[in-house]
Amino acid sequence: MLNSKEKNKKKECAGKTVASEKITPRSFDYSKWYLDVIAAAELADNSPVRGCMVIRPNGYAIWENIQKILDAMFKETGVVNAYFPLLIPKSFLEAEAEHVEGFAKECALVTHHRLAFNEDGKLVPSGELEEPLIIRPTSETIMYRMYAKWIKSYRDLPLLINQWCNVMRWEMRTRLFLRTSEFLWQEGHTAHATKAEAEEETIQILKIYQKFVEEYLAIPVIPGYKTESEKFAGADYTTTIEAMMQDGKALQSGTSHHLGQNFAKAFSVKFLDENGQEQYVWQTSWGLSTRIIGALIMAHSDDTGLVLPPKIAPTQVVIVSIMNGKDNEAVAAKSNELAKALRLAGLTVKVDNRDGRPGLKYFEWERRGVPVRLEVGPKDIANHSVVAVRRDTGVKAVISEDSLAAGVKEILDAIQVNLFDKALAFRKENTREVNSYEEFKTTLESKSGFLLAHWCGNAECEAKIKEDTKATSRCIPFDQPEENGKCVYCGKASKKRIIFAKAY
Amino acid sequence: MLNSKEKNKKKECAGKTVASEKITPRSFDYSKWYLDVIAAAELADNSPVRGCMVIRPNGYAIWENIQKILDAMFKETGVVNAYFPLLIPKSFLEAEAEHVEGFAKECALVTHHRLAFNEDGKLVPSGELEEPLIIRPTSETIMYRMYAKWIKSYRDLPLLINQWCNVMRWEMRTRLFLRTSEFLWQEGHTAHATKAEAEEETIQILKIYQKFVEEYLAIPVIPGYKTESEKFAGADYTTTIEAMMQDGKALQSGTSHHLGQNFAKAFSVKFLDENGQEQYVWQTSWGLSTRIIGALIMAHSDDTGLVLPPKIAPTQVVIVSIMNGKDNEAVAAKSNELAKALRLAGLTVKVDNRDGRPGLKYFEWERRGVPVRLEVGPKDIANHSVVAVRRDTGVKAVISEDSLAAGVKEILDAIQVNLFDKALAFRKENTREVNSYEEFKTTLESKSGFLLAHWCGNAECEAKIKEDTKATSRCIPFDQPEENGKCVYCGKASKKRIIFAKAY
Repeated sequence: MLNSKEKNKKKECAGKTVASEKITPRSFDYSKWYLDVIAAAELADNSPVRGCMVIRPNGYAIWENIQKILDAMFKETGVVNAYFPLLIPKSFLEAEAEHVEGFAKECALVTHHRLAFNEDGKLVPSGELEEPLIIRPTSETIMYRMYAKWIKSYRDLPLLINQWCNVMRWEMRTRLFLRTSEFLWQEGHTAHATKAEAEEETIQILKIYQKFVEEYLAIPVIPGYKTESEKFAGADYTTTIEAMMQDGKALQSGTSHHLGQNFAKAFSVKFLDENGQEQYVWQTSWGLSTRIIGALIMAHSDDTGLVLPPKIAPTQVVIVSIMNGKDNEAVAAKSNELAKALRLAGLTVKVDNRDGRPGLKYFEWERRGVPVRLEVGPKDIANHSVVAVRRDTGVKAVISEDSLAAGVKEILDAIQVNLFDKALAFRKENTREVNSYEEFKTTLESKSGFLLAHWCGNAECEAKIKEDTKATSRCIPFDQPEENGKCVYCGKASKKRIIFAKAY
Repeated sequence: MLNSKEKNKKKECAGKTVASEKITPRSFDYSKWYLDVIAAAELADNSPVRGCMVIRPNGYAIWENIQKILDAMFKETGVVNAYFPLLIPKSFLEAEAEHVEGFAKECALVTHHRLAFNEDGKLVPSGELEEPLIIRPTSETIMYRMYAKWIKSYRDLPLLINQWCNVMRWEMRTRLFLRTSEFLWQEGHTAHATKAEAEEETIQILKIYQKFVEEYLAIPVIPGYKTESEKFAGADYTTTIEAMMQDGKALQSGTSHHLGQNFAKAFSVKFLDENGQEQYVWQTSWGLSTRIIGALIMAHSDDTGLVLPPKIAPTQVVIVSIMNGKDNEAVAAKSNELAKALRLAGLTVKVDNRDGRPGLKYFEWERRGVPVRLEVGPKDIANHSVVAVRRDTGVKAVISEDSLAAGVKEILDAIQVNLFDKALAFRKENTREVNSYEEFKTTLESKSGFLLAHWCGNAECEAKIKEDTKATSRCIPFDQPEENGKCVYCGKASKKRIIFAKAY
């Protein structure tokens, strides 16, 4: 069934045996480095379906951890989960003008519901649908049609629903995790009685995203507003958290939208208020996707491979048995015993009792990003201690068996802090205030990173800057010094600096 | 945006205020009763998309519990999760002959990837794809193409991957949970070096399904083989667990397939064995879907509404405050205090501190299937006790505050056992051995339930029985007494009795 080209591909890829493919250094080819890290850690793979990726078990385990943590944070605020249809009638998408504009150009369309044999004996689409259905690029339209049915009175509000699902936006140029036609995400959709409540919800969720990305993924982010031209199609305004990758590019890491009453009016989502008056609800929507795994990979990894923060790593500790032949059984038993103790202390642990040179085994676990490696050999057993090696710094420490769990936890905490601090220092180093368009352009040419520039608020200036430089407005940071300035492009008065950068 | 018909619908449906719609009794109209129970408990709703349902938060919370429990059971055996593309190229589905035969007639086809304006200014499908893509009805073909790439050596085996996802099989006649075009499920797909290992895996998973459905959902099931004509399209054989609903119909509750080397050969999934010889892998696939929620609803609920076993109920206990006006604050505080204590003991608890007649509040929580209701009023506070009411029997008990958690847990355990025992007794009462075709037909006409009949193994007899009676073969139970008999249809020798029944 496979042609010869595919057979060759098969030979190239890595199996469970220790892999030896090299990872391209970041300095040599950053894009290739990114894909090499993913391949070496077996996080994802291209699929035979254009634009769609396969999330392999090592990558999916990260997504499962993201889901578990974020889901609990949402539920803490009263959000509940539900599931809405994958397919959306074309007319629903059309109901909100800006929305259809934003999504019509890149959507997968279901037009038939059967395969049947044609005259030549070939299976071809049959059973044409009266109205084409769109695979959801996002679910506002299908969800709010239901909200219109469910919401009757102010007592039904707020309605706080989230769904974890797959969505599809047709992409021509794709990149594992960062840009794929199908991706996984969560999308929250809330309805409120007042504008103030909806605005509060918008910000509450953005703060959850920020807390999650900073505290768990160890990626510092800048929260702020998107400009009008970068906002979500159909929203009154969009809030975002923006992160800097190791190549200085920006990556939008989560967005929370205040929808105003735009969809409420399009879908007739109304309620009777306490005075018996009919009102439109105020809405928010917010999402975070598997794209964040791309950010996670790029934020911390190095030329050896994946680096994961301990709070999100599916495996926090790997115990590598050093096999010398004659003591193999005793060493394996000791490794298993230590693993058991660490698991009891709440850590996730793998044991590598395979034969083979220790160096090769270390190499494999380093590429997979496991934060701490413990080395256990006959000498360590005799000394009642183990050697612990940090993935982030390579620093070694000897830990006594008596205090193993506490010692390992201390190292894990230190790694989590170090990764965040390093990423924050990098972002600070690579964020520059620029005060003229000349300075803007020369800085962008010579250095990667974020530019903080005054902007008058005019979409035309923003568009011209993008056209000239390929840098886009990333966000208007919430945190702004009181400062009067001049638009870097047109020179008109400006009160705010916004972040411009090249972006993923 | 809504027409008048839709506006009327809106008025009919229930909100958060206490609902008063009646539930149709089972004896009057079983199908209507089923839909009324779902509506009253707000588990699901029809969507505007043909054949697709909305799983509302109360229903989705059940699915989340199912996922949590089953996922842990799978992982215990070494299974890991991953995610594969939603869309499958037509040619992949065609690669296995029986498989395409089984799924081509009811699949959603993506043929275009853009909406564009036509000459009349209407948005129409554009960007036709070279090859149509099928929304996965199941993922064997797309997954095994990847397995062919990943598996190289016996060291890469077994490969044990599961995915939680949505799938789509176009349905004309749909019914909430039981039969919908889109549904949620898990599908496990494993590859092994030997046939024996694959067969062991097939049975191991079926046993997990049985344990889960019996111990958590309190539904007794009969494990067995599907006949050739009822097996999965592409499998060597299919194992199944079959449950009986309250109307005597059968519901297939989970299936585990031994795929042999059929897909391995179609997709060239090969490995080098320990002797360096190239071999095809042996495979299994297995799935359990949101359909099981339909079974859960039908197995235990009554004319008052939903009844849920405590081990799967999203809310195990509801504390209803009895408000008399002057003591409201004290009562609410006591209810909150008791809830806190019960949560500390590991139970999921809701508190109903709303104003309103207690009877109406009881009514609402009964309809939602919460296993235990605790009533707290001024008198109970004075007595340092609460009244506990069982949802399954309505039996009341007074529990002292001192031993509240222990007392409630005892009741929950008793409910779990009672629901299973009741369902088992019902199944036994409604399972009948029949020894002639005449007896088969007259029994089926006068009574609902399972028929245990000898069958020679010939697909023609099976087809004739189905044609005559609408009863299908449900399974060949693993557990068979040694018994020689005669095929109930043709009279030829038979060594096994199989279960025939009308089915969902």
